[in-house]
Amino acid sequence: MTTLYGLAKYFSEHDNYEIITHNYPDGDTLGSGFALCLGLQQIGKKARVITTSFPSKFRYLEIGVEKQEFEAETIIAVDVANESLLGVNTEKYKNIIDVCIDHHGSNSVYAKEKYVDRQAAANCEIIYRLLQRMNVRITRNIADCLFTGVSTDTGCFRYSNTTSETMRIAADLMEYGCSFAYINKVMFETKTKEKIQLERAVLDTITYAADGQCALIYTTLDMMKSLNIGDDEMEGLASIPRQIEGVRIGITMREKEENVYKISVRTNGNLNASDFCSRFGGGGHPAAAGCTIKGEFDFVRKLLISAAELALK
Amino acid sequence: MTTLYGLAKYFSEHDNYEIITHNYPDGDTLGSGFALCLGLQQIGKKARVITTSFPSKFRYLEIGVEKQEFEAETIIAVDVANESLLGVNTEKYKNIIDVCIDHHGSNSVYAKEKYVDRQAAANCEIIYRLLQRMNVRITRNIADCLFTGVSTDTGCFRYSNTTSETMRIAADLMEYGCSFAYINKVMFETKTKEKIQLERAVLDTITYAADGQCALIYTTLDMMKSLNIGDDEMEGLASIPRQIEGVRIGITMREKEENVYKISVRTNGNLNASDFCSRFGGGGHPAAAGCTIKGEFDFVRKLLISAAELALK
Repeated sequence: MTTLYGLAKYFSEHDNYEIITHNYPDGDTLGSGFALCLGLQQIGKKARVITTSFPSKFRYLEIGVEKQEFEAETIIAVDVANESLLGVNTEKYKNIIDVCIDHHGSNSVYAKEKYVDRQAAANCEIIYRLLQRMNVRITRNIADCLFTGVSTDTGCFRYSNTTSETMRIAADLMEYGCSFAYINKVMFETKTKEKIQLERAVLDTITYAADGQCALIYTTLDMMKSLNIGDDEMEGLASIPRQIEGVRIGITMREKEENVYKISVRTNGNLNASDFCSRFGGGGHPAAAGCTIKGEFDFVRKLLISAAELALK
Repeated sequence: MTTLYGLAKYFSEHDNYEIITHNYPDGDTLGSGFALCLGLQQIGKKARVITTSFPSKFRYLEIGVEKQEFEAETIIAVDVANESLLGVNTEKYKNIIDVCIDHHGSNSVYAKEKYVDRQAAANCEIIYRLLQRMNVRITRNIADCLFTGVSTDTGCFRYSNTTSETMRIAADLMEYGCSFAYINKVMFETKTKEKIQLERAVLDTITYAADGQCALIYTTLDMMKSLNIGDDEMEGLASIPRQIEGVRIGITMREKEENVYKISVRTNGNLNASDFCSRFGGGGHPAAAGCTIKGEFDFVRKLLISAAELALK
């Protein structure tokens, strides 16, 4: 485990960086990747970001990034808790990661240099402090990347993982001119007409269990097809069941392909979502985690409800 | 117009404070009132807060406030943009307000001393800076009150009115030990089962106009009755139509009594919600305002859509 100073020194002494992000990328892994890439290019290094997908709403993150031709020499993983989260890139990178920068307590990546700060609400908080130590000037583009990560990983400063350090970093980034209102609007305040229809449909699927302490919602491939909705629209659904008064564990089942369900779990209070999901081979944070379960719809739903009832005892 | 220093001096020289808040009280007017009350009591003054109602979810704000018997001598209005917003207390107080502390640019209250800072995202930001100048120690209870106002008036730091000053004040309050996670959860993340049903019903009422640039939703007394829902549950509905992609003006019509509609208007971009509502005798902020219109449902709805179409031209 190195220090931020150690990391800054490492970055000054190496070159030709390939920065890898986790699959189903979110604002924090992409924001971390592009902020670091912009910072490295600013100090004269060659760098690029590797993503498994790049949803259109995040495209502004790559503004200012120069497309550079080079052979990768130094592999950096950002916000990647374990190698399997690299998705289709797992095999390619799993044994050659040089530096891993992350904020997941459960991080199990094998890397030559590791910096994991589980106190950081967002990985972008670490990247911000690192860029300062690297004497990178925080441009508007860098500030946009970092704010995106800080804001999205805290539910716009709403979740209990938020700290006063998070708020002060956000304040700094606002003063560096980040487009915080635009970012918050795109990430949290904008829903397509189709998304509104989806939410309405999903509200019809709520099942309560354990005296209302567990709520479960689901989407099926049929629902998605009839509403003409893609995977991009699914974000945020997982927060619906936990919001209901009295609910301690909120579960969202999304049919990804026939008889394959992606499960998102959100908990309140002292119930650990990561522990819950680890029973099914998944993981995440104490209040927000996920896993994938294969099986018939009814079987998966009953299994999850039984597991929730046990966890609530 | 006085200064914060002038206000601090005023408060040290007077006593027996009655702090008045606006009707349909929100987190900012109540947070301002109770924080100031706690601060005044801490420096040895007598003070109480007057509310027209006090929803149960805000009850934690009065923790630590001492019930004191005294004849009111000094009347302080907090977060009150005009006297009519005092509701049933309008006649009693409208000519006797000594100090008005507010952040609405449209403030028209008549008071001996006025301090209006329209740069402040929340009135509680002003109260925080004032309490510092009054040498009040920021206790956990005071921090809870102030954080409640700052968080609720910025949609949990999401809206464009948020500033880096807002974020730094929130960081300070977190360091003073405010229960930010509890407050954010209660204010933003908790919905009753009835509220979930209401949202579902309201999503069925969406009407689009002006090529999808205007969206209107409504609730009727019948809906409220059949869902067994009270006025307390209505908060937050107004943000639904503006969230829809492409919508520049989102309108919410709530039937308050037969043929009387409370209208909430939320806008994106350069459309001024306060101007829009002022045509119907209302007002508010540039992006969030309200008014009351009397008339038959169809008439009111058509009137609002016509006005929106005109404003969008």
